Amino acid sequence: MKPLPGFRDFLPDDCAFRNAIFATWREVCRRYGFVEWDGPVLEPTELYQKKSGPEIVGQLFNFTDKGGREVALRPELTPTLARVVAANERGFRKPLKWFSIPQCFRYEKQQRGRLREHFQLNCDLIGDDSLGTDVELVALLIDLLRGFGFIADDFVVRLSDRTFWTDLFTAENVPNERWTELLQVIDKSEREPREKTAAQLGDLAKPVFEVLAGGGRSEKLEQLVEQLSQRDLARFVKIDLSIVRGLAYYTGVVFEAFDRKGELRAIAGGGRYDKLIAQLSDNAVSLPAVGFAMGDVVLGELIKNVPAAFEKLAERVTRQSSLDLYVVIAKEERRGEAMRQLQQLRDAGWRVDYASAVTKVGKQFQTAESLGAKATLLYGDEWPQLKLKTLATRGETLVPHEKIAAYLQARAGELRGA
Amino acid sequence: MKPLPGFRDFLPDDCAFRNAIFATWREVCRRYGFVEWDGPVLEPTELYQKKSGPEIVGQLFNFTDKGGREVALRPELTPTLARVVAANERGFRKPLKWFSIPQCFRYEKQQRGRLREHFQLNCDLIGDDSLGTDVELVALLIDLLRGFGFIADDFVVRLSDRTFWTDLFTAENVPNERWTELLQVIDKSEREPREKTAAQLGDLAKPVFEVLAGGGRSEKLEQLVEQLSQRDLARFVKIDLSIVRGLAYYTGVVFEAFDRKGELRAIAGGGRYDKLIAQLSDNAVSLPAVGFAMGDVVLGELIKNVPAAFEKLAERVTRQSSLDLYVVIAKEERRGEAMRQLQQLRDAGWRVDYASAVTKVGKQFQTAESLGAKATLLYGDEWPQLKLKTLATRGETLVPHEKIAAYLQARAGELRGA
Repeated sequence: MKPLPGFRDFLPDDCAFRNAIFATWREVCRRYGFVEWDGPVLEPTELYQKKSGPEIVGQLFNFTDKGGREVALRPELTPTLARVVAANERGFRKPLKWFSIPQCFRYEKQQRGRLREHFQLNCDLIGDDSLGTDVELVALLIDLLRGFGFIADDFVVRLSDRTFWTDLFTAENVPNERWTELLQVIDKSEREPREKTAAQLGDLAKPVFEVLAGGGRSEKLEQLVEQLSQRDLARFVKIDLSIVRGLAYYTGVVFEAFDRKGELRAIAGGGRYDKLIAQLSDNAVSLPAVGFAMGDVVLGELIKNVPAAFEKLAERVTRQSSLDLYVVIAKEERRGEAMRQLQQLRDAGWRVDYASAVTKVGKQFQTAESLGAKATLLYGDEWPQLKLKTLATRGETLVPHEKIAAYLQARAGELRGA
Repeated sequence: MKPLPGFRDFLPDDCAFRNAIFATWREVCRRYGFVEWDGPVLEPTELYQKKSGPEIVGQLFNFTDKGGREVALRPELTPTLARVVAANERGFRKPLKWFSIPQCFRYEKQQRGRLREHFQLNCDLIGDDSLGTDVELVALLIDLLRGFGFIADDFVVRLSDRTFWTDLFTAENVPNERWTELLQVIDKSEREPREKTAAQLGDLAKPVFEVLAGGGRSEKLEQLVEQLSQRDLARFVKIDLSIVRGLAYYTGVVFEAFDRKGELRAIAGGGRYDKLIAQLSDNAVSLPAVGFAMGDVVLGELIKNVPAAFEKLAERVTRQSSLDLYVVIAKEERRGEAMRQLQQLRDAGWRVDYASAVTKVGKQFQTAESLGAKATLLYGDEWPQLKLKTLATRGETLVPHEKIAAYLQARAGELRGA
């Protein structure tokens, strides 16, 4: 009688919290001119093999379907995006600014707080390799977090660039075949003992540790920060060349957002992947691209940790789902009239509930309160007048039943507490 | 380079169409006081075995996960709902009015137009077995379809009652064990040769065929229609005892919505399932319930067939995602100023796009048109004034750059074409 391990039930309060996150994501993305798309939750396993890097492939939630196909619940959306764009790009003016909110999956050993599914906002900008595109995308990431009410004290986006590292590899005469492996070592270096990293890096240990200690400079990243400062967003970022990202397909700028206190895992991460679309289309279509993903789980934790953000989301939840009116039927002989009125109020867009079974009046009022109704509409002794009671103020008014729709309409803003 | 057979990619136009359907569903459900919830996309296979009936179980998209668990991509949401409610019901005041929009899956031989996934609105009313609950739910179904702009000429809800049939079986001394099988035979009778149905029914053929020919009367259904007529909704329904529904767990009123022309499969279907929650909780919790589901695929076809509905949805799509402004940069030396302004406009809630790479002015205007922007904002020779051009009317105005935010704010309704 439980969900499978690592899967969540969303009871109404949880679902409202989740939907308010989704609504904030959509609102900010649309301000940036991004349009929503979606792909299948299930894809051929080969779409992810070799494209995504060892970490994701080892955790794939994959299986053989009844038709003998090797398939996987999507671990991430970027390979699907590359597939869809490669197949349809002729129909679209570039650059594409696309976002999506897929549920993604992984199969790994259960640990505390590690789920097997989460929802993930994906934002991608495709068909433009200018640095301005990276700026626009990092700005979107910052404004998404600002959209939740977070300020520069709450989070930071750390900016890095893989070409900085591959330029260093080139200068040190490291053969191309070793680059992916070395990037993985650098990616893990923060979480591994220094000796282990040093052993894996060999001759490269000295120059790499120098950079990780703050000795590297990237002109591209400095330009990126300069362009963000035109938008007054530089205070939300920091150059940090230790960011490499685990996914294999990144080719340029990479970045991750963290809470300033450093208590949580990364809130979001992404980067440039200029070669993936060509790879997945056998070079029939080649388009530069940059994107990021932000999951609902870490973000949700940060929202709960920051009171201003939590209150802002709670307000959105209330706007989303609060009930306007509860119809209380004290005289059963008025039920027919009440139902006729209920229908007309709902047709006019009001959110109205009532007790469909015969119920004691006191219990009907209790239900109205517990549902958070703004007001009750009583069919009682006052008929042909109705008693309208605003629950917040306890104020009561008598309104002739045939005039109630017009009366409410005229006071819509007031009643909804606008 | 294609999605798996039976799975859809949602390009931005498809996704906007789908999201506008979801938004309509949510809006009408909330008018009825329904709150949203959700469950896992993957569940233990046994949740569906025996509970849902042979049709669904034979088409399960099931597999063994890496931990050796028998699991299935959900074919429907009702068993999850029963599981979640049984586990959490103490925390909620009854009745529950819950809706959800899950993606559901089945694995069956590919046929033209038969997908392996679809989205499905589920609405359930739990904890009340009064006929008024069935009325409220059927009214919601009708208003959901009216919410898309459909009228009584476009669709009909056919109402039936399984207890009518089980009462008939009792009167004819049919043993209880045969009921499920016989209900399946009646459910299929419309689509099977009469002789085959007759053979399967045996002695029951005569009374059953009499009812199917219109010779049955149900007082309960007549009351249901009477109560719908209080809400002026009776014109949308028809009593039709041939409706039985394929799912095994229904126990009372059942209903299906069809297009009036009879060209499409059922748009929606549901009914009362008073025993499922008890079954799934080993009788620890027993709650009556009634619910229905409406898929996005048949509904989408009907919307495309009915011009008024299609236009209504198209309007919602436009409201959802249209761009307000496109910033055109004719003088690169103004890019910094333009970016500062862009940020402020987005912060104020405007949807604003621009070209992040250096682009010819003519192409920037073309992009603004193709994105459906309401207006362009030109950084050109007129600096320090900006040229604001409304694309629908071609009207142009010069506005000092430092006043543009206030200027737009004052004309927000006009600009957005409200």
